[in-house]
Amino acid sequence: MTISNDFQSHADGTEGDEAEIRRTIDKAVEGLRAKDLEALEQLYTTDVVSFDVEPPLQHVGIAAKLENWSKVFMFFETVTYEVRDLTFTVGDDVAFGHAFARLSGTLKNGATTSGMWVRVTYGMRKIDETWLIAHDQVSVPLDIASGKGVVDLEP
Amino acid sequence: MTISNDFQSHADGTEGDEAEIRRTIDKAVEGLRAKDLEALEQLYTTDVVSFDVEPPLQHVGIAAKLENWSKVFMFFETVTYEVRDLTFTVGDDVAFGHAFARLSGTLKNGATTSGMWVRVTYGMRKIDETWLIAHDQVSVPLDIASGKGVVDLEP
Repeated sequence: MTISNDFQSHADGTEGDEAEIRRTIDKAVEGLRAKDLEALEQLYTTDVVSFDVEPPLQHVGIAAKLENWSKVFMFFETVTYEVRDLTFTVGDDVAFGHAFARLSGTLKNGATTSGMWVRVTYGMRKIDETWLIAHDQVSVPLDIASGKGVVDLEP
Repeated sequence: MTISNDFQSHADGTEGDEAEIRRTIDKAVEGLRAKDLEALEQLYTTDVVSFDVEPPLQHVGIAAKLENWSKVFMFFETVTYEVRDLTFTVGDDVAFGHAFARLSGTLKNGATTSGMWVRVTYGMRKIDETWLIAHDQVSVPLDIASGKGVVDLEP
């Protein structure tokens, strides 16, 4: 993923907005790699509704979302977060996007994990000229016959 | 069902747009109950990207999405589709929304199933004055320790 350093917040039209949205996602990736909760907090609306890969059905509010990330950071010594096929549809102050992502790294117990590819959907809002994540859903498909999550698919 | 009133206002637009979007989802529910693929076809963009509850990771295009519904209809004699907590954030021609949903009914073999609650996210686009589903993600959470999908949660 690339970051457009010469982006101006007053750039015209959705091209500039899409660049800004992608920069928000880039910052999320950087924040995960750095295990930086304060950086991540800047990227979500306070009322973010998250349908995350693990239970419960939903996390409501930024505190719940950050607590969830903090749990990940307790397990992982080093975090890598890879994003593929990131695509956005951008309106004036509402956008949505989707991607595939994989969180991997080294666990606190020394083991390494290659992680699993998940599907990610983002709902974005532009508030005070800043694009924020207002909703996300992250999942693997379900094999209904076995009741198992399908964790070995690659995009 | 709750209505999200906290989007940035377009004084004379988004209320009508939200009503139209909700009608699109109502039509989807009706189309599922009627097992009416032609009615469902009218509700999606031709290039819809669907991250559905079962594998693969994604279905791309309306034909793949409809084939997926047709498989459901082959299993079910009667279909009920229940939606809870449907919430939308609406822009000028882009919107996103989320809800919980449960597909249940009577199977062709005579058994009844109460189904499972899934999380649903919608990415919507207004094209030629019509709001269409351009993206969706549907999932249950994953219990990572057991590898099982969590199918017994209720919103």
